[in-house]
Amino acid sequence: MIKVGVNGYGTIGKRVADAVRAQPDMKLVGVAKTRPNYEAEAAVRKGYPLYAAIPEKSDAFRQAGIDLAGEIDDLVMQSDVVVDCTPSGIGEQNRELYERYDTRALFQGGEDADVVDASFNARANYDSARDDDVRFARVVSCNTTGLSRLMAPLDEAFGVEKARITLIRRGGDPADASRGPINDILPDPVTVPSHHGPDVNTIFPDLNIDTVGVKVPATLMHLHSVNVTLSETPTVEDVRDLLHEESRLFLVPDVAGIDGTGQLKEFAMDTGRPRGDLWENCIWGESISVEGDDLYLFQSIHQESDVIPENVDAIRAITDAADQRESMRATDENLGVGLESVFGGVRKRITPRDLNADD
Amino acid sequence: MIKVGVNGYGTIGKRVADAVRAQPDMKLVGVAKTRPNYEAEAAVRKGYPLYAAIPEKSDAFRQAGIDLAGEIDDLVMQSDVVVDCTPSGIGEQNRELYERYDTRALFQGGEDADVVDASFNARANYDSARDDDVRFARVVSCNTTGLSRLMAPLDEAFGVEKARITLIRRGGDPADASRGPINDILPDPVTVPSHHGPDVNTIFPDLNIDTVGVKVPATLMHLHSVNVTLSETPTVEDVRDLLHEESRLFLVPDVAGIDGTGQLKEFAMDTGRPRGDLWENCIWGESISVEGDDLYLFQSIHQESDVIPENVDAIRAITDAADQRESMRATDENLGVGLESVFGGVRKRITPRDLNADD
Repeated sequence: MIKVGVNGYGTIGKRVADAVRAQPDMKLVGVAKTRPNYEAEAAVRKGYPLYAAIPEKSDAFRQAGIDLAGEIDDLVMQSDVVVDCTPSGIGEQNRELYERYDTRALFQGGEDADVVDASFNARANYDSARDDDVRFARVVSCNTTGLSRLMAPLDEAFGVEKARITLIRRGGDPADASRGPINDILPDPVTVPSHHGPDVNTIFPDLNIDTVGVKVPATLMHLHSVNVTLSETPTVEDVRDLLHEESRLFLVPDVAGIDGTGQLKEFAMDTGRPRGDLWENCIWGESISVEGDDLYLFQSIHQESDVIPENVDAIRAITDAADQRESMRATDENLGVGLESVFGGVRKRITPRDLNADD
Repeated sequence: MIKVGVNGYGTIGKRVADAVRAQPDMKLVGVAKTRPNYEAEAAVRKGYPLYAAIPEKSDAFRQAGIDLAGEIDDLVMQSDVVVDCTPSGIGEQNRELYERYDTRALFQGGEDADVVDASFNARANYDSARDDDVRFARVVSCNTTGLSRLMAPLDEAFGVEKARITLIRRGGDPADASRGPINDILPDPVTVPSHHGPDVNTIFPDLNIDTVGVKVPATLMHLHSVNVTLSETPTVEDVRDLLHEESRLFLVPDVAGIDGTGQLKEFAMDTGRPRGDLWENCIWGESISVEGDDLYLFQSIHQESDVIPENVDAIRAITDAADQRESMRATDENLGVGLESVFGGVRKRITPRDLNADD
């Protein structure tokens, strides 16, 4: 049983906590939060032991009538692994805390790659975090996760000569009341490349990839306009078949009548997904096209949730508790990852292409 | 003096009428409109002779207290050229009307290329409309115009091996109250390529170009994420210098503090541009990047106005009233095209690269 603490209980932290609770081989020791807001209240209601992330602010919880199980040091001390889900840059500051208690930690994509021993994507480089020397790993950002899941099978099957991606990014999450833009389309960053390409290179050091970013007035999901020049030219069917095998890639069926991110989220909520989460890359089947050596497709990425299965796998990887196949299969099974199954009539659970053999 | 009629007085028609009025070598015979709405009222107030586009609906104008100069047939009969600015598909139906009076006509980009004898972009193929046999020409759409203006100098100077463009399109114009999306990012079309690539090929038959389209909740301008693999690899400075020479390309200066389409439009209004129009492609200078053989840049296109200078030039081309250099120079001078000048301290007027020689 892996004892897991979650430090930071916002958009990512609360989802990681729920996902950890769903794994029979893990125990959620508790969650830490800085302020007694509505999310803290919900954590307590769910029965999650709640710890004060900033000990000096413990009183604020008591004043709000929220019981604390202790302070952050207690949580770190009891955990085999802490998943740090604090805002970008805070993770780096927390590293010393985890070192103090000799507790392994996972950071999120907002931290710099050089804060950790390894950058992690379950599909692409699971084993990078299994080495005993790796005490700190980083689950790469939502966009980098989405790109890594796509590039891994494409590179294995056809060879990626060059990838060129335009990321059309949501301005903020649905609950971010202070972010924009409203009625604008902004190059963001205006310089090329955006940070995403170099970030993908922390997973695939040799991949030739250029990324550019744009920000638009939407909150639900990102959209990637993907172009990949391939070494071997497949047919559209070859690409569809390849991607169909991956449980964390959802090929939006032509018959589904799903035109955009709004309908994707509506579909997720209709299926009963917690918080309407879409853990899978959502790739429009109709968009998959081959023009000469160039593959094109559109994929939408749910920025709030696609990294959740990866965090669960990273917990097993950094504790060397399971190999890639075991872990991804367990994570997918326990969470219910794999939307393709609903439309195809067959539930598929485990998926990485190189793991499809019987053993 | 070229006698010009404008059929259709909406977003494009009203701008074409104003632009024609600003040309000393043209006379605006009048404008035709289907309904006596606020735009019709404004036309009359400006002193434009107003014609009923649908004769059976003439009474509606009288009932609204708006005087008509006549009916559409009168306008067509008196005109050397009619600029048809009616909604997509209506132009095709009007073609027979123009044939009846042996009047040449220009259509907009919403009409199919096979409705006309030539598809037109002033910078790229002005002479295509000068042939006496060309009685009907089509000024290509806002996006195709924007792409043609950019591809022409790039192809001449460096050779375009392949262009790959993601068009991040505004959902509707600012006055389109019934269009969406709200808070969504939609592949549009979901299939690849979008119609824009083939449309660019009506101007450059041999250009290797793939385009994909996305629709977002914004109204002000389109944004193009441009990738061009070039035959000869230039430096960033080479590209900047090349594009700087073109009056209809505005290199948004790094110092301008313009981050997106909202600030571009604000800037246009501050400079006193009519309706805040941006006739030029707005290319973010900072975005111009060369990675290997690949050029990247972002450009914004004002969908309501970038085709206006092209319509003016097309009038001269289809009546063989001026050559490319004369016409573009006159159009730019009379309208005030060329924003680069303001920042550079020097007013530049005429720009196509191959026309820079003294004569």
